[in-house]
Amino acid sequence: MTDASDQELREQGTAFIPKFDSAGLLSAVVQHAKTGEVLMVGFMDAEAIAATRSTGFAHFHSRSRGRLWKKGETSGDVLEIVELRVDCDQDAVLLKVRQTGGACHTHRESCFYRRIENGALSFTENAD
Amino acid sequence: MTDASDQELREQGTAFIPKFDSAGLLSAVVQHAKTGEVLMVGFMDAEAIAATRSTGFAHFHSRSRGRLWKKGETSGDVLEIVELRVDCDQDAVLLKVRQTGGACHTHRESCFYRRIENGALSFTENAD
Repeated sequence: MTDASDQELREQGTAFIPKFDSAGLLSAVVQHAKTGEVLMVGFMDAEAIAATRSTGFAHFHSRSRGRLWKKGETSGDVLEIVELRVDCDQDAVLLKVRQTGGACHTHRESCFYRRIENGALSFTENAD
Repeated sequence: MTDASDQELREQGTAFIPKFDSAGLLSAVVQHAKTGEVLMVGFMDAEAIAATRSTGFAHFHSRSRGRLWKKGETSGDVLEIVELRVDCDQDAVLLKVRQTGGACHTHRESCFYRRIENGALSFTENAD
């Protein structure tokens, strides 16, 4: 239950009170700290947030594998945190990062390498 | 079930085949087309994607209200689509937009107006 004062506290306060969904997750957007490019989107649970904050490297919760996942744990393409932000109602976080290698498992810098145009996809110029 | 060729098609192909979660939703990140600032994160279902593409203005699915929601329908603060992108596995979209007013319901330009630092939140310089 959320009443007006809870909402006010969450939106205007200085306490970090993440609002997880029914699966215990919130959205996490990863952005290149220098270029501003959006690199990927993942999900975090309380464990992933704690691991990210304590290590300084992005961790997510893998929905498919059902476990904590450090970005780059196998590829070496880690994401170092430069700044963490939270949104108004605290159900999403923004990770501004320094990148080692590609954020995408396809080895591209960003996962968003295709435009949606006229019902189909076209690859962007920086797609590889 | 997803086999290797399905995955290949989704990641390397030119067909837009959005991958919705069990609630019929995918993540939608909104970014200012010029400044690159991440403005907000929402969720879209097939209806919201169709409405966004046909009107050229961002629509989302409101999880709390359980219905289609045009951003700015009451505030007038609409988000005009400049470019739409999809990520590698097609379970997230990126909306590059032109902004009228603030993206945040608190009237700020972006919902991400607070940093997470040492366990607490601090307001950013462009927080109001």
